[in-house]
Amino acid sequence: MLSAEIIAIGSELLAADRTDTNSLWLTEQLNRMGIDVKLKTVVGDDDARLEEVVKDAVKRSRVVITTGGLGPTEDDITRKVVARALKRRLSLNESVLAEIRERFKSFGMNMPERNSRQAMVIDGSEVLPNPNGSAPGLYLEHEGCAVALFPGPPREMKPMFENHVQSRLEKLAGDIRFARRVLRVAGMGESAVDEKIAPIYTKYENPQTTILFNSSEIEVHLRAHGRTEADAEALLDDLSLKIEKELGNAVFSFRGEKMEEVVGRRLAITGFTLSVAESCTGGLIAERLTNVPGSSKYFVEGLVTYSNESKTRLLGVDKKLIREFGAVSQQVARDMARGVRHRAKTDFGLAVTGIAGPDGGTEEKPVGLVFIALADGAHTEHKRFVLPGDRELIRWRASQAALDMLRRRLI
Amino acid sequence: MLSAEIIAIGSELLAADRTDTNSLWLTEQLNRMGIDVKLKTVVGDDDARLEEVVKDAVKRSRVVITTGGLGPTEDDITRKVVARALKRRLSLNESVLAEIRERFKSFGMNMPERNSRQAMVIDGSEVLPNPNGSAPGLYLEHEGCAVALFPGPPREMKPMFENHVQSRLEKLAGDIRFARRVLRVAGMGESAVDEKIAPIYTKYENPQTTILFNSSEIEVHLRAHGRTEADAEALLDDLSLKIEKELGNAVFSFRGEKMEEVVGRRLAITGFTLSVAESCTGGLIAERLTNVPGSSKYFVEGLVTYSNESKTRLLGVDKKLIREFGAVSQQVARDMARGVRHRAKTDFGLAVTGIAGPDGGTEEKPVGLVFIALADGAHTEHKRFVLPGDRELIRWRASQAALDMLRRRLI
Repeated sequence: MLSAEIIAIGSELLAADRTDTNSLWLTEQLNRMGIDVKLKTVVGDDDARLEEVVKDAVKRSRVVITTGGLGPTEDDITRKVVARALKRRLSLNESVLAEIRERFKSFGMNMPERNSRQAMVIDGSEVLPNPNGSAPGLYLEHEGCAVALFPGPPREMKPMFENHVQSRLEKLAGDIRFARRVLRVAGMGESAVDEKIAPIYTKYENPQTTILFNSSEIEVHLRAHGRTEADAEALLDDLSLKIEKELGNAVFSFRGEKMEEVVGRRLAITGFTLSVAESCTGGLIAERLTNVPGSSKYFVEGLVTYSNESKTRLLGVDKKLIREFGAVSQQVARDMARGVRHRAKTDFGLAVTGIAGPDGGTEEKPVGLVFIALADGAHTEHKRFVLPGDRELIRWRASQAALDMLRRRLI
Repeated sequence: MLSAEIIAIGSELLAADRTDTNSLWLTEQLNRMGIDVKLKTVVGDDDARLEEVVKDAVKRSRVVITTGGLGPTEDDITRKVVARALKRRLSLNESVLAEIRERFKSFGMNMPERNSRQAMVIDGSEVLPNPNGSAPGLYLEHEGCAVALFPGPPREMKPMFENHVQSRLEKLAGDIRFARRVLRVAGMGESAVDEKIAPIYTKYENPQTTILFNSSEIEVHLRAHGRTEADAEALLDDLSLKIEKELGNAVFSFRGEKMEEVVGRRLAITGFTLSVAESCTGGLIAERLTNVPGSSKYFVEGLVTYSNESKTRLLGVDKKLIREFGAVSQQVARDMARGVRHRAKTDFGLAVTGIAGPDGGTEEKPVGLVFIALADGAHTEHKRFVLPGDRELIRWRASQAALDMLRRRLI
């Protein structure tokens, strides 16, 4: 099995509140192709230390990946120091320079002079294009070691890895293939999930199973290896089918899709339309739904009715209901769902009202109390929750529960 | 200023879902006493690699801290390998052995034979007692470098650091204290910021300045040291004032506050109210604003008008304008802002319309084209942007630009 090491570069990564998350993603990608990450380093903008780390790394590991330090400023030392560590020249590449200039031009700007630094290329290396930023990456093979330099921002690094480096490393890695799958579960607790499925997954050494608790979602991670990807996938198919049989509808996603993607796909397939009225979630449900490309086909409108007056004027919620039961009540949630559906003329109306905290809770109506209602032409259903967590987590969990309610209705 | 490095030891720390959190806590402790963390390494149970890392570390840093690998099993290689790297003998310490035996006895157990390994002590080192576990720590000074070996579990490591190592390191560090500050900047590019302020901050070695580019925000991190915390803060005050003078209003936050917190505070102080109409941002602006506790004081409502019909019905946008100029146009943005303000009876109306992609762009109206409008009782202003990035980033940047427009108006 090939050994790899990952070097994250940048003084800011050494702060007490920063972790290097790029290395986690890269580890996952490398493990999947059967490459073992043996060492990870975080080093500041520090020429001498970085040079030593790179020299050691290329001697002892077959794959070395760096992230960060490819920006246009003085602090961005990666190109320069890696070239020095490998005793290779660094020279200006005119065509890369032209591309960077072009990129700035397309945004109606002139390239600042310092960005020309990003067109410096290590001798013998290949330039990895960066459609999502100005810093191109570099790839080279040096005395039996594959070296890839990536920019630090994940949205630039990830596609660059997938499009330009992954297949080369796969060739180097040879004949063992890994596959993973993430089942996502909603509406059940972590121990309830484990109690149900532990008797199944503990029988298997391959796939390997890990249960992760993440905000309000439970994720079941399966990892299998085989001689081909198809072999590994077949092992995953077998186990995930058994798990699904046990957990039923609570499993909402098999390939790591997000809840809003699953709901969106069902709406798109069925042709139903949706409108949303939100109080305590403050636009989060609309935001999640509309973050899915193509959502304009089924998402018609979302109303964030934060004040009582908005609830009445925009949704037609009966003022008497608010007076009698309070804005956070099943009655108001149901009226909101019916109101938004009726006015937006959609097939479904989904509504949430609750107390996200930290203030506003009472003994009778504590922080975390949330009512969710879903209306279609024939009925309106509702559910009551008391959700744990801080403001942000309560909002997220409420949005998840609301989307899950719609998902279950659409099954 | 003393330099430190932290080495986390254990193959399990190299998994794709594990981060080394001990190093964050240690970094905070070290920074507070004026010791600079220059490098962090995560290394598996791998003799050769660990030996190399330790050898390099004691040569280049004045403080080296390791966590993990002090357990009783074959995998626990820290004592053995550090001794080898420092060319010191490892020998059994009878009194440590007796204590470990005693500890097991107090739980009514006999010490398993392999735990005697934990009584091996590096020559010249001092044993750090561990009341919370069986693995004692070690502390030694080696050719001018302070080396501390801690167990991995935080509840064992932290008290050991605080009770036995902190005061020694404070003595080494002398009279130096640190402070940091984060300035956040909106509405300028990374290189533009650097070009403006590099002539200022490069004159200073203390404070040290790092520029970070993070989604659409630029962060300027300043870190200073002085004999007291007040001295360090005074240095930060001085430099951050100069930077602010150069960047002006583009600096929106001096203590790391988020844009929505800054805008929210200004609204709360001034007593103005706000309503928001969103198209391409799909609720993100409302979501960000309402994530701030107490936002119900100034945020009245948010309308996510995804369809043209919603724009007309909910905001009173003139159908003819949509037909003539398209939903993504300055005319429609302005009508949306005026419409939401008028109907919600708020002081300000903020509106966004644009093309977040990946589909829906044309030559004339490309993906990333966004119009933002802000209306108060007297005027309506608008701005046109072409934002780079994928759907998620375009939406985030549009939300940031919209909030920034409101922030500048509120100054």
